[in-house]
Amino acid sequence: MSTSALIGITMGCPAGIGPEILLKFLHGRSGNPAFRPLILGDIGVLHRVGQDLGLEIDLRPWEPGMALPSRGVPVYSLSSLDPSLLEWGQPTRETGRAMAEYILEAVRLCQEQTLAAMVTCPIGKATLNAAGFPYPGHTEMLAELTGCDHYRMMMAGSRLRVVLVTIHEPLARVGDLLAPESIADCIRMTHQALEQDFGITGPRIAVAGFNPHCGEQGMFGREEIDIIEPAVRRLASSCRVSGPWPPDTVFHQAAEGRFDAVVAMYHDQGLIPFKLLHFRDGVNVTLGLPIVRTSVDHGTAYDIAGRNLADPASLAAAWELAARIGANRARRTAP
Amino acid sequence: MSTSALIGITMGCPAGIGPEILLKFLHGRSGNPAFRPLILGDIGVLHRVGQDLGLEIDLRPWEPGMALPSRGVPVYSLSSLDPSLLEWGQPTRETGRAMAEYILEAVRLCQEQTLAAMVTCPIGKATLNAAGFPYPGHTEMLAELTGCDHYRMMMAGSRLRVVLVTIHEPLARVGDLLAPESIADCIRMTHQALEQDFGITGPRIAVAGFNPHCGEQGMFGREEIDIIEPAVRRLASSCRVSGPWPPDTVFHQAAEGRFDAVVAMYHDQGLIPFKLLHFRDGVNVTLGLPIVRTSVDHGTAYDIAGRNLADPASLAAAWELAARIGANRARRTAP
Repeated sequence: MSTSALIGITMGCPAGIGPEILLKFLHGRSGNPAFRPLILGDIGVLHRVGQDLGLEIDLRPWEPGMALPSRGVPVYSLSSLDPSLLEWGQPTRETGRAMAEYILEAVRLCQEQTLAAMVTCPIGKATLNAAGFPYPGHTEMLAELTGCDHYRMMMAGSRLRVVLVTIHEPLARVGDLLAPESIADCIRMTHQALEQDFGITGPRIAVAGFNPHCGEQGMFGREEIDIIEPAVRRLASSCRVSGPWPPDTVFHQAAEGRFDAVVAMYHDQGLIPFKLLHFRDGVNVTLGLPIVRTSVDHGTAYDIAGRNLADPASLAAAWELAARIGANRARRTAP
Repeated sequence: MSTSALIGITMGCPAGIGPEILLKFLHGRSGNPAFRPLILGDIGVLHRVGQDLGLEIDLRPWEPGMALPSRGVPVYSLSSLDPSLLEWGQPTRETGRAMAEYILEAVRLCQEQTLAAMVTCPIGKATLNAAGFPYPGHTEMLAELTGCDHYRMMMAGSRLRVVLVTIHEPLARVGDLLAPESIADCIRMTHQALEQDFGITGPRIAVAGFNPHCGEQGMFGREEIDIIEPAVRRLASSCRVSGPWPPDTVFHQAAEGRFDAVVAMYHDQGLIPFKLLHFRDGVNVTLGLPIVRTSVDHGTAYDIAGRNLADPASLAAAWELAARIGANRARRTAP
């Protein structure tokens, strides 16, 4: 097995639910012949959590330069936190530094193509910053590490995929932030991702409107006429894009199979329907990065860490999607 | 059977899907011992549609003052449109006047308590106006006819109920339109409807935030802090209301059974999740009217009228809900 058939999974914050969902995922995983997981984390913490949960996973220490173990799950252990000092839900500067290390090293291994993709478990934003990494989040950190200044968030599930034009903005300001250029760019990136990474030929992209009923010909709001329609027209000859569609029905239509993705104008427009359909098993994919990265779409869940309540469904879905994208990219670059 | 155990169903626009869903509903309906339907419409049109669809319904002409037929479905025929001249999807001034008559008479029969409730099939707004009834829609017409200046729209389904604070407004203006008073009023009306009309003791009401993640303590938007929290606080001692909740998860929680209704700040915030869960069988209920009125939550669907494609699920759900509300109100007013 070539090392490029490895997908890295970063353990995330050691005091959160990351170690737990990781072990549950490894335990429940049926063998995927195409890719093998490499864990970037802390083997001592994983052993303790495995004991607490009664999950026996055959974890094998590994580091760059070593041959991969023939059996078990290779763990690239990048921190040696004292498991007896680790308190669930209580991140420290040390756990923060550790979780940043997992990310830094996963990116490096993706860049040198030891890894075909990376899947990230959740980190705490405040802890990341306190540990000396002043990023607003995971995605921005990955973008800077890979020298990427042009990326977008897609939320992907089996029934619905949404890509957001604006994200963490006051809703009252979103109308002012919309522009034909950014919407067209979002459509273009969505098209490229669906075709190249998801392997969908001629993907059908719906663009949501902004106002109720798309503003009914300008009666309540003109963003559709002035901004969204021009963006859709601009790309209509180069891909199968349509819209603006009334926001209250387009997600239903997409979930019914009529569209492969919906470009949403604002955070909740996309995430309300996405979380309704994929609360457990949603995946966050960063479009535009030079490396392949998928992520669970939930947080560290400090309130339930260490209580054997965490659900590995989102991690399992993030793994499957990373493998799908990794395989599609390998196929495209094969000689 | 007393006449107060009658629920009226208005046929809606004769050139739309109203007659079709009405006959399909009557055909599929299992006997509901508590209430009996009275159709307000055009018996000639219904006969023609029944023939076209191959649905034999025992329709019996009825008008005020007559005894109810012992069998079959009583039809109070308020127009005599020539079925051979009626073209599907082509409303005329005559069909507009006719559909307004059905509504006027249903309201009158509700007011004199011949009907316990009314269920409305869809009408065309433009046709209504052209026929000399200058209302923006059904609801406004019913409000004026009953002298009600204080009403709200609830969308109700088996998994989710939402009540809207603002409806047909440009999204960019909604922030300016929100006020603690109107939100508190909306919570109050929701509480009253759930308790009195839906028969839910101590109903749990969730109030949605406005910005993504509720603005994260004012980082992106202050509507939660300045407007929504004060409204919730104002009512927290008089009913089980909570919030503001992050919009992207509160509808999932409500659908999982944690809340009996969600108060939504704007049209698509409430209708995106509602239509995702209840695209076929959603019901529109007007809160605050002195009479009981439920409605299908779809339009006249002129594009598919007469083609035997229309789905009666929303009408069936509107009927069931009208019966539930009618029974609860009768119980409350019983000596």
